Amino acid sequence: MEKTNVAIVGLGTVGTGVARLLLDHGDRTARHAGRTLWLKKAVVRDLSKPRDVDLPSGIVTDSIDDVINDPDIQVVAQLIGGLEPARTIMLRLLESGKDIVTANKALLAEHGPELFTRARELGRSIAFEAAVAGGIPIIANLSQCLSANQICKLEGILNGTSNFIVTQMDEKGASYEDVVRRAQQLGYAEADPTMDVDGTDAAQKLSILAHLAFGATVNWADIPRVGIDGLDPDDLRFSRQLGYRIKLLALANLADDGLELSVGPTLVRIGTPLAEVRDAYNAIRVIGDAVGPVFYHGLGAGQMPTASAVAADLIDTAVGRTKLTFQTLEYFSTDQPPRVKQREADTLVGRCYFRLNVANHPGTLAAITAVLAKHKISIASVIQHEPENGNADDSGPPSGTVPLVIMTHAAAEGAARTATEEIQSLSAVTGPVVRLRVKD
Amino acid sequence: MEKTNVAIVGLGTVGTGVARLLLDHGDRTARHAGRTLWLKKAVVRDLSKPRDVDLPSGIVTDSIDDVINDPDIQVVAQLIGGLEPARTIMLRLLESGKDIVTANKALLAEHGPELFTRARELGRSIAFEAAVAGGIPIIANLSQCLSANQICKLEGILNGTSNFIVTQMDEKGASYEDVVRRAQQLGYAEADPTMDVDGTDAAQKLSILAHLAFGATVNWADIPRVGIDGLDPDDLRFSRQLGYRIKLLALANLADDGLELSVGPTLVRIGTPLAEVRDAYNAIRVIGDAVGPVFYHGLGAGQMPTASAVAADLIDTAVGRTKLTFQTLEYFSTDQPPRVKQREADTLVGRCYFRLNVANHPGTLAAITAVLAKHKISIASVIQHEPENGNADDSGPPSGTVPLVIMTHAAAEGAARTATEEIQSLSAVTGPVVRLRVKD
Ligand SMILES: NC(=O)c1ccc[n+]([C@@H]2O[C@H](COP(=O)([O-])OP(=O)(O)OC[C@H]3O[C@@H](n4cnc5c(N)ncnc54)[C@H](OP(=O)(O)O)[C@@H]3O)[C@@H](O)[C@H]2O)c1
Ligand SMILES: NC(=O)c1ccc[n+]([C@@H]2O[C@H](COP(=O)([O-])OP(=O)(O)OC[C@H]3O[C@@H](n4cnc5c(N)ncnc54)[C@H](OP(=O)(O)O)[C@@H]3O)[C@@H](O)[C@H]2O)c1
Repeated sequence: MEKTNVAIVGLGTVGTGVARLLLDHGDRTARHAGRTLWLKKAVVRDLSKPRDVDLPSGIVTDSIDDVINDPDIQVVAQLIGGLEPARTIMLRLLESGKDIVTANKALLAEHGPELFTRARELGRSIAFEAAVAGGIPIIANLSQCLSANQICKLEGILNGTSNFIVTQMDEKGASYEDVVRRAQQLGYAEADPTMDVDGTDAAQKLSILAHLAFGATVNWADIPRVGIDGLDPDDLRFSRQLGYRIKLLALANLADDGLELSVGPTLVRIGTPLAEVRDAYNAIRVIGDAVGPVFYHGLGAGQMPTASAVAADLIDTAVGRTKLTFQTLEYFSTDQPPRVKQREADTLVGRCYFRLNVANHPGTLAAITAVLAKHKISIASVIQHEPENGNADDSGPPSGTVPLVIMTHAAAEGAARTATEEIQSLSAVTGPVVRLRVKD
Repeated sequence: MEKTNVAIVGLGTVGTGVARLLLDHGDRTARHAGRTLWLKKAVVRDLSKPRDVDLPSGIVTDSIDDVINDPDIQVVAQLIGGLEPARTIMLRLLESGKDIVTANKALLAEHGPELFTRARELGRSIAFEAAVAGGIPIIANLSQCLSANQICKLEGILNGTSNFIVTQMDEKGASYEDVVRRAQQLGYAEADPTMDVDGTDAAQKLSILAHLAFGATVNWADIPRVGIDGLDPDDLRFSRQLGYRIKLLALANLADDGLELSVGPTLVRIGTPLAEVRDAYNAIRVIGDAVGPVFYHGLGAGQMPTASAVAADLIDTAVGRTKLTFQTLEYFSTDQPPRVKQREADTLVGRCYFRLNVANHPGTLAAITAVLAKHKISIASVIQHEPENGNADDSGPPSGTVPLVIMTHAAAEGAARTATEEIQSLSAVTGPVVRLRVKD
């Protein structure tokens, strides 16, 4: 049987999983690749660290040159995170004639055009299934399986850490801080979870998907984004009363005047598939003009789901499919103008959820609804309870105030923002006004 | 730009949709294929029939020879249904050097080994994404995206017509006959829907998926199957009371002693994803040992969803990916022994739902539970209501009897079948004993 020599750079969570699949399940990779995928080298930083996989002697090295200078190694799984040295290593690997498989979405979101262009110049390929949504093969599905469609809309829960935190807050009534701590203990959240919980990671993934699905070339930093780091348990509770759950939703929606892109906590109606995505799962709903809606659900991260995606890419690369796809689609090519432009955020239209604490006296609701009316935002429903007496729980509203929740019909983002500011400045309103999107 | 000449054989529902995608959306197929897919010929039986697509003159023909004798046509979408002349036409097309794309699952389930072997001998390829689950790209996902996994289990709602009928019966309380009539009016069900409603179509699709996912080579006719044609609205109602919906479920489950395969109406717990698949949608849940559970949901049939899958295959074939996959995977090769054998049906283990009409007198329940106990089948729950007086509705049980519903814990198929026969022969039992599977 023919043999393709493979190297893994970075034997962390994902790299160890990939090594396991190659070493312990060579039969299945061989069957699907029509040749043996032979793990020849694995590069680490620290040779003394124990690795959770049985590695044959002579494989592990701390020198990337052992891979770069070995002309027999054809494919490299580049599995170190962050921007540098990952970027430099990737360029050196490409220049030494290797095809690359990677899971590093931050690197692609930041340096995709440079890396892909260089790979094309050199006649090499970069596969990146594992960079978005872990085990859900959304890259292949958008690039190949749905290729006869104009994608009209894409909605996804793309950050497993955020979804785990929100699910636990929602179901256990726990505070944000407590759940983050639990997520870290369970290994779902990093020691510094900032990029996960502030929406950066989801925006980076969305920028990659928006390129594949719509031909947009969007800097992830230009995607309006809000994280779940400021989420208040009260909003989860009121949303539930209204028949919704809150999810960190990444949205790409093709309108006449451009592509709407956003990431933010969003009310999703209970019973619809995206609302039922729990814990560390990811899900993506794609609407194509021919295929209609297609829904994907699976584990968005974790060692073996991510390794499954990396290994599928290794197989595709060894078989030769990746090269054909990579040459044909010209991902992030700077030669071609983007097919669609990002839309102005202020003109985006959607329903809103407002929550505020208001003084419990006559005229308050009238003042607030007058502001909404002025901005032509019509109200769909309101929740205002009697003030709870003797509320000792410090999570409640300041004494003498009551929480007020308003769901609106569709309103333009610009109008909703201005209205929020005006409501915030009303004397009857205490504390910050919370505004969240509602998925239609 | 390079050009790949394409022909469509059969301009029915699916063929017309494919012609539309090629003619009206040539830009997107070209973008994803890196070359123009040029519709050169479309073969029909009846030239005078109007077609719901604008066809340039000179394209439509009633002679397959116009395709076979044109060496410039490289790829053919073979979209006529049934076994003959589809089989002969397919062989002739392969022999004339064409690569094939097809949606004909009946043909593949019946003649797959012959057709695939012949294609390989001739260095040609057959792509068949549209043959299973319409717009859900399950063929590519099993063949490529999940290829690093050992698939452990696959559960699917694979027949849209059956799912439409069951959903309507469940939600509207309508009778089987009324819903079938409506499904025919809406174009969901064929004039003769037998193959859809008796489980044949689902079994044919399952045999294809079982080959891709497990390397099994199973004759679809050897898959134990029950259709929804005998489904009683009472069972939908009682299931709901117990917290379940009934779905026509196709199941493939890998056990130590072989592959369990079956198709039949199955109780699925409300709130789980498969239970919420409504109307003409299909869904598939695949569990891989690395990736964990992945769930796919989309339209299982219909003109454009199916055309989306056919066109994706045309693109893959034009790009050259299909050939690589086809040569590597050796689908239905007779050279290789199957990797797994189908398991003996009698040893399959699962929970059961029983419904029967029993005489309303003391000792009846004792007699029935004694039979179950004898076969070591333990009871999980029982529904037995007071007899309804003055029940004029002829769908109810015979007078003097009451319906009895029993849910059991896991039991072997053989034991459950024998117990059913013994219960059926008890004098207190009137009418047929209904037994359905319960999904764990
Ligand atoms: N974890 C997931 O679930 C997941 C899911 C999807 C995508 N990803 C992406 O996959 C990539 C890897 O993630 P991970 O979770 O596996 O990270 P990780 O556990 O932190 O592992 C990183 C590995 O890279 C090695 N490394 C770092 N700098 C190096 C250098 N200069 N030279 C050689 N090796 C170096 C480290 O070596 P030492 O062990 O010797 O320190 C370590 O083995 C990241 O881009 C991440 O975003 C991860
Ligand atoms: N419909 C769906 O939603 C769907 C979904 C998945 C898979 N499929 C599969 O796709 C295939 C096509 O289905 P369909 O619904 O499109 O069928 P259809 O509407 O009945 O169309 C069949 C077409 O084949 C043509 N035809 C039949 N015999 C022929 C012959 N000897 N020579 C040339 N043309 C011939 C017919 O020509 P005339 O029009 O001139 O009679 C007709 O255009 C079937 O295998 C089906 O199982 C269908």
